[in-house]
Amino acid sequence: MADDSLFEFLHMEIVSHVYKEHESRGDNDKERGTCVSLLELMGFRVGQGLIERFTKDTPSFKDELDVMKFVCKDFWTNIFRKQIDNLRTNHQGTYVLQDNRFTLLTPLSSGKQYLEEAPKYLAFSCGLLRGALSNLGLESVVTAEVSLMPACKFQVVVQKI
Amino acid sequence: MADDSLFEFLHMEIVSHVYKEHESRGDNDKERGTCVSLLELMGFRVGQGLIERFTKDTPSFKDELDVMKFVCKDFWTNIFRKQIDNLRTNHQGTYVLQDNRFTLLTPLSSGKQYLEEAPKYLAFSCGLLRGALSNLGLESVVTAEVSLMPACKFQVVVQKI
Repeated sequence: MADDSLFEFLHMEIVSHVYKEHESRGDNDKERGTCVSLLELMGFRVGQGLIERFTKDTPSFKDELDVMKFVCKDFWTNIFRKQIDNLRTNHQGTYVLQDNRFTLLTPLSSGKQYLEEAPKYLAFSCGLLRGALSNLGLESVVTAEVSLMPACKFQVVVQKI
Repeated sequence: MADDSLFEFLHMEIVSHVYKEHESRGDNDKERGTCVSLLELMGFRVGQGLIERFTKDTPSFKDELDVMKFVCKDFWTNIFRKQIDNLRTNHQGTYVLQDNRFTLLTPLSSGKQYLEEAPKYLAFSCGLLRGALSNLGLESVVTAEVSLMPACKFQVVVQKI
């Protein structure tokens, strides 16, 4: 519980810092994309570090789906204290992970008022997923989508090499 | 355990981000002080937020020392999974909080090699303390000192109004 709020507060601070700093530089709207990239990259590195610890005692995975299930269950629970509520896949490398009550969105209103603010609170977590998967051998592109807060969907497209 | 590393990794990212961004701006050495201030201020806000949650069900404190004891024990444990090891005071508003194995310093070498790097990993935590105390009615100045990592001392000087 305590740690949860620590992470939530810290995450809020980072998001607000990254955006404020861009404003103070007078960057234009186009360059605001770099805020998202920055947060995503931070998440990526944190995800890489975390998954290394979480999988220390885990036997190897039998396939891609097995990796995704681990990420939805163990990885997500370790960070957000709940699992992903729903995992769907087209069995061709695309996965949709749905969290019906995403921790980092709950401090925002659950109405539509802050809907346009949502993406900046999702970038870090997209990075977390991409970092974790990358360390487990899956290079991917991760995007997020919100329709009704605090629910959200992460789409993972595994890159075939 | 999981959450601990989440906080540690995230903290590392913030520190490295704040310093990198200053370098990229070409700021000179004098202005590096602002990195410390920035991290301290983030810690301050997080400390304020956290203490509010932690003290929700706590009866009020009987005096300044009582507040300090709470911070050393409950507040510190909630964040760092261990208490402050030693609390000393001159009974005139100055307190020295010693942590013999400070979590955010342990990833650095425990030798002298990274000693000069230590301050940037302490600024956030100085802010945490100052924020928590401020919300409990004590305005203070908090500084940190390291002699042999990963041990460190936080000095709190309560400002009498």
